[in-house]
Amino acid sequence: MDQPCRSACPIACTLDLVGDRWTLIVVRDMMFFGKERFEEFLASPEEISTNILTSRLRQLEAAGLVERKLYSTRPRRTSYHLTETGKSLRPVLKTIAVWGLRHLEQTRTPEQF
Amino acid sequence: MDQPCRSACPIACTLDLVGDRWTLIVVRDMMFFGKERFEEFLASPEEISTNILTSRLRQLEAAGLVERKLYSTRPRRTSYHLTETGKSLRPVLKTIAVWGLRHLEQTRTPEQF
Repeated sequence: MDQPCRSACPIACTLDLVGDRWTLIVVRDMMFFGKERFEEFLASPEEISTNILTSRLRQLEAAGLVERKLYSTRPRRTSYHLTETGKSLRPVLKTIAVWGLRHLEQTRTPEQF
Repeated sequence: MDQPCRSACPIACTLDLVGDRWTLIVVRDMMFFGKERFEEFLASPEEISTNILTSRLRQLEAAGLVERKLYSTRPRRTSYHLTETGKSLRPVLKTIAVWGLRHLEQTRTPEQF
Protein backbone atom coordinates (compact mmCIF):
# COMPACT_ATOMS: atom_id res chain seq x y z
CA MET A 1 0.00 0.00 0.00
CA ASP A 2 1.27 3.44 -0.85
CA GLN A 3 -0.73 5.92 1.19
CA PRO A 4 0.66 9.32 2.20
CA CYS A 5 2.09 9.15 5.73
CA ARG A 6 3.13 11.74 8.29
CA SER A 7 6.42 9.97 8.86
CA ALA A 8 8.17 6.69 8.11
CA CYS A 9 7.11 5.31 11.51
CA PRO A 10 4.92 2.23 11.03
CA ILE A 11 2.78 3.22 14.04
CA ALA A 12 2.15 6.75 12.73
CA CYS A 13 1.52 5.44 9.23
CA THR A 14 -0.97 2.82 10.45
CA LEU A 15 -2.76 5.44 12.52
CA ASP A 16 -3.00 7.63 9.41
CA LEU A 17 -5.08 4.81 7.97
CA VAL A 18 -7.12 3.47 10.89
CA GLY A 19 -6.37 5.87 13.79
CA ASP A 20 -9.77 7.22 14.66
CA ARG A 21 -12.76 6.18 16.78
CA TRP A 22 -14.70 4.50 14.00
CA THR A 23 -12.64 2.77 11.33
CA LEU A 24 -11.68 -0.25 13.42
CA ILE A 25 -15.27 -0.58 14.65
CA VAL A 26 -16.36 -1.17 11.05
CA VAL A 27 -13.46 -3.59 10.52
CA ARG A 28 -14.44 -5.37 13.76
CA ASP A 29 -18.03 -5.75 12.52
CA MET A 30 -16.81 -7.44 9.33
CA MET A 31 -14.10 -9.51 11.01
CA PHE A 32 -15.86 -10.86 14.10
CA PHE A 33 -19.57 -10.38 13.48
CA GLY A 34 -19.81 -11.25 9.77
CA LYS A 35 -21.51 -7.97 8.90
CA GLU A 36 -21.56 -7.03 5.22
CA ARG A 37 -24.34 -4.58 4.59
CA PHE A 38 -24.61 -0.85 5.30
CA GLU A 39 -27.68 -1.33 7.53
CA GLU A 40 -25.89 -4.01 9.54
CA PHE A 41 -23.06 -1.60 10.43
CA LEU A 42 -25.61 1.06 11.40
CA ALA A 43 -27.24 -1.42 13.78
CA SER A 44 -24.11 -1.90 15.93
CA PRO A 45 -24.36 -0.70 19.54
CA GLU A 46 -21.94 2.19 18.93
CA GLU A 47 -24.54 3.81 16.64
CA ILE A 48 -22.28 5.07 13.87
CA SER A 49 -23.91 7.79 11.79
CA THR A 50 -24.61 7.25 8.08
CA ASN A 51 -22.20 9.96 6.96
CA ILE A 52 -19.31 8.68 9.09
CA LEU A 53 -20.02 5.11 7.95
CA THR A 54 -20.06 6.19 4.29
CA SER A 55 -16.77 8.05 4.69
CA ARG A 56 -15.05 5.19 6.56
CA LEU A 57 -16.17 2.57 4.03
CA ARG A 58 -14.80 4.74 1.21
CA GLN A 59 -11.49 5.24 3.01
CA LEU A 60 -11.20 1.53 3.75
CA GLU A 61 -11.91 0.73 0.11
CA ALA A 62 -9.39 3.32 -1.13
CA ALA A 63 -6.79 1.86 1.22
CA GLY A 64 -7.37 -1.64 -0.13
CA LEU A 65 -8.69 -3.00 3.17
CA VAL A 66 -12.29 -3.45 2.05
CA GLU A 67 -13.89 -4.32 -1.26
CA ARG A 68 -17.40 -3.66 -2.41
CA LYS A 69 -19.59 -6.20 -4.14
CA LEU A 70 -22.83 -5.63 -5.94
CA TYR A 71 -25.07 -8.46 -4.78
CA SER A 72 -28.28 -7.19 -6.35
CA THR A 73 -28.85 -4.88 -9.30
CA ARG A 74 -32.60 -4.34 -8.86
CA PRO A 75 -32.69 -2.78 -6.40
CA ARG A 76 -29.00 -1.90 -6.44
CA ARG A 77 -27.45 -3.43 -3.28
CA THR A 78 -23.86 -3.40 -2.17
CA SER A 79 -22.04 -5.53 0.36
CA TYR A 80 -18.65 -4.88 1.94
CA HIS A 81 -15.93 -7.44 2.57
CA LEU A 82 -12.45 -7.40 4.05
CA THR A 83 -9.63 -8.01 1.59
CA GLU A 84 -6.67 -10.15 2.63
CA THR A 85 -4.93 -6.96 3.80
CA GLY A 86 -8.02 -6.04 5.79
CA LYS A 87 -8.14 -9.50 7.34
CA SER A 88 -4.50 -9.13 8.35
CA LEU A 89 -5.64 -6.53 10.91
CA ARG A 90 -6.97 -9.40 13.06
CA PRO A 91 -3.98 -9.43 15.48
CA VAL A 92 -4.28 -5.65 15.90
CA LEU A 93 -7.96 -5.95 16.85
CA LYS A 94 -7.29 -8.93 19.10
CA THR A 95 -4.51 -7.14 20.99
CA ILE A 96 -6.69 -4.06 21.44
CA ALA A 97 -9.57 -6.25 22.70
CA VAL A 98 -7.31 -8.07 25.15
CA TRP A 99 -6.00 -4.76 26.50
CA GLY A 100 -9.51 -3.34 26.86
CA LEU A 101 -10.83 -6.42 28.65
CA ARG A 102 -7.97 -6.29 31.11
CA HIS A 103 -7.98 -2.57 31.83
CA LEU A 104 -11.42 -1.10 31.18
CA GLU A 105 -14.04 -2.02 33.70
CA GLN A 106 -17.14 -1.63 31.57
CA THR A 107 -16.03 -4.08 28.91
CA ARG A 108 -17.03 -7.69 28.43
CA THR A 109 -16.13 -10.38 25.89
CA PRO A 110 -18.51 -10.65 22.98
CA GLU A 111 -19.09 -14.32 22.18
CA GLN A 112 -17.56 -14.00 18.74
CA PHE A 113 -14.07 -12.97 19.89
CA MET B 1 -10.23 2.24 34.82
CA ASP B 2 -13.76 3.53 34.72
CA GLN B 3 -14.07 5.80 31.69
CA PRO B 4 -17.37 6.37 29.87
CA CYS B 5 -17.59 4.05 26.84
CA ARG B 6 -19.83 3.93 23.78
CA SER B 7 -20.50 0.25 24.33
CA ALA B 8 -19.28 -2.72 26.34
CA CYS B 9 -17.03 -3.81 23.46
CA PRO B 10 -13.39 -3.77 24.56
CA ILE B 11 -12.31 -2.56 21.11
CA ALA B 12 -14.77 0.36 21.09
CA CYS B 13 -13.91 1.21 24.68
CA THR B 14 -10.15 1.20 24.01
CA LEU B 15 -10.67 3.38 20.94
CA ASP B 16 -12.64 5.82 23.10
CA LEU B 17 -9.40 6.24 25.03
CA VAL B 18 -6.65 6.06 22.43
CA GLY B 19 -8.46 5.93 19.06
CA ASP B 20 -7.18 9.01 17.29
CA ARG B 21 -4.18 9.98 15.18
CA TRP B 22 -2.09 11.38 18.02
CA THR B 23 -2.53 9.68 21.40
CA LEU B 24 -0.56 6.54 20.56
CA ILE B 25 2.20 8.67 18.97
CA VAL B 26 2.78 10.31 22.36
CA VAL B 27 2.66 6.90 24.08
CA ARG B 28 5.12 5.57 21.47
CA ASP B 29 7.51 8.44 22.20
CA MET B 30 7.52 7.59 25.91
CA MET B 31 7.61 3.81 25.43
CA PHE B 32 10.21 3.39 22.71
CA PHE B 33 12.13 6.66 22.55
CA GLY B 34 12.39 7.53 26.24
CA LYS B 35 10.85 10.96 25.75
CA GLU B 36 9.62 12.72 28.88
CA ARG B 37 9.46 16.44 28.25
CA PHE B 38 6.94 18.54 26.34
CA GLU B 39 9.60 19.85 23.94
CA GLU B 40 10.77 16.34 23.19
CA PHE B 41 7.30 15.30 22.05
CA LEU B 42 7.06 18.43 19.89
CA ALA B 43 10.36 17.49 18.21
CA SER B 44 9.05 14.16 16.83
CA PRO B 45 8.86 13.87 13.04
CA GLU B 46 5.03 13.90 13.04
CA GLU B 47 5.13 17.52 14.27
CA ILE B 48 2.31 17.44 16.80
CA SER B 49 0.97 20.89 17.62
CA THR B 50 1.26 22.30 21.14
CA ASN B 51 -2.50 22.41 21.69
CA ILE B 52 -3.05 18.82 20.56
CA LEU B 53 -0.09 17.68 22.65
CA THR B 54 -1.43 19.50 25.72
CA SER B 55 -4.87 17.97 25.27
CA ARG B 56 -3.54 14.42 24.70
CA LEU B 57 -1.24 14.56 27.73
CA ARG B 58 -4.18 15.70 29.88
CA GLN B 59 -6.40 12.92 28.55
CA LEU B 60 -3.67 10.32 29.10
CA GLU B 61 -3.18 11.56 32.64
CA ALA B 62 -6.93 11.57 33.35
CA ALA B 63 -7.14 8.00 32.03
CA GLY B 64 -4.33 6.88 34.33
CA LEU B 65 -1.96 6.02 31.49
CA VAL B 66 0.52 8.83 32.13
CA GLU B 67 1.68 10.61 35.26
CA ARG B 68 3.26 14.00 35.55
CA LYS B 69 6.32 14.73 37.65
CA LEU B 70 7.69 18.11 38.65
CA TYR B 71 11.43 17.80 38.13
CA SER B 72 12.30 21.45 38.68
CA THR B 73 10.46 24.17 40.60
CA ARG B 74 12.55 27.15 39.42
CA PRO B 75 11.81 27.29 36.61
CA ARG B 76 8.80 25.05 36.92
CA ARG B 77 9.43 21.98 34.72
CA THR B 78 7.24 18.94 34.24
CA SER B 79 8.05 15.53 32.86
CA TYR B 80 5.64 12.84 31.71
CA HIS B 81 5.90 9.12 32.36
CA LEU B 82 3.89 6.03 31.50
CA THR B 83 2.17 4.37 34.44
CA GLU B 84 2.04 0.57 34.61
CA THR B 85 -1.29 0.71 32.77
CA GLY B 86 0.30 2.92 30.13
CA LYS B 87 3.23 0.52 29.76
CA SER B 88 0.77 -2.32 29.28
CA LEU B 89 -0.07 -0.80 25.87
CA ARG B 90 3.27 -2.14 24.56
CA PRO B 91 1.75 -5.19 22.78
CA VAL B 92 -0.83 -2.92 21.12
CA LEU B 93 1.89 -0.64 19.77
CA LYS B 94 4.05 -3.58 18.73
CA THR B 95 1.22 -5.26 16.81
CA ILE B 96 0.37 -1.99 15.07
CA ALA B 97 4.04 -1.48 14.16
CA VAL B 98 4.36 -5.02 12.79
CA TRP B 99 1.25 -4.53 10.67
CA GLY B 100 2.47 -1.18 9.34
CA LEU B 101 5.91 -2.54 8.45
CA ARG B 102 4.37 -5.41 6.56
CA HIS B 103 1.68 -3.51 4.69
CA LEU B 104 2.67 0.14 4.30
CA GLU B 105 5.45 0.77 1.84
CA GLN B 106 6.79 4.02 3.22
CA THR B 107 7.50 2.65 6.68
CA ARG B 108 10.81 1.48 8.12
CA THR B 109 11.84 0.07 11.49
CA PRO B 110 13.12 2.66 13.92
CA GLU B 111 16.14 1.26 15.75
CA GLN B 112 14.36 1.38 19.10
CA PHE B 113 11.55 -1.06 18.20
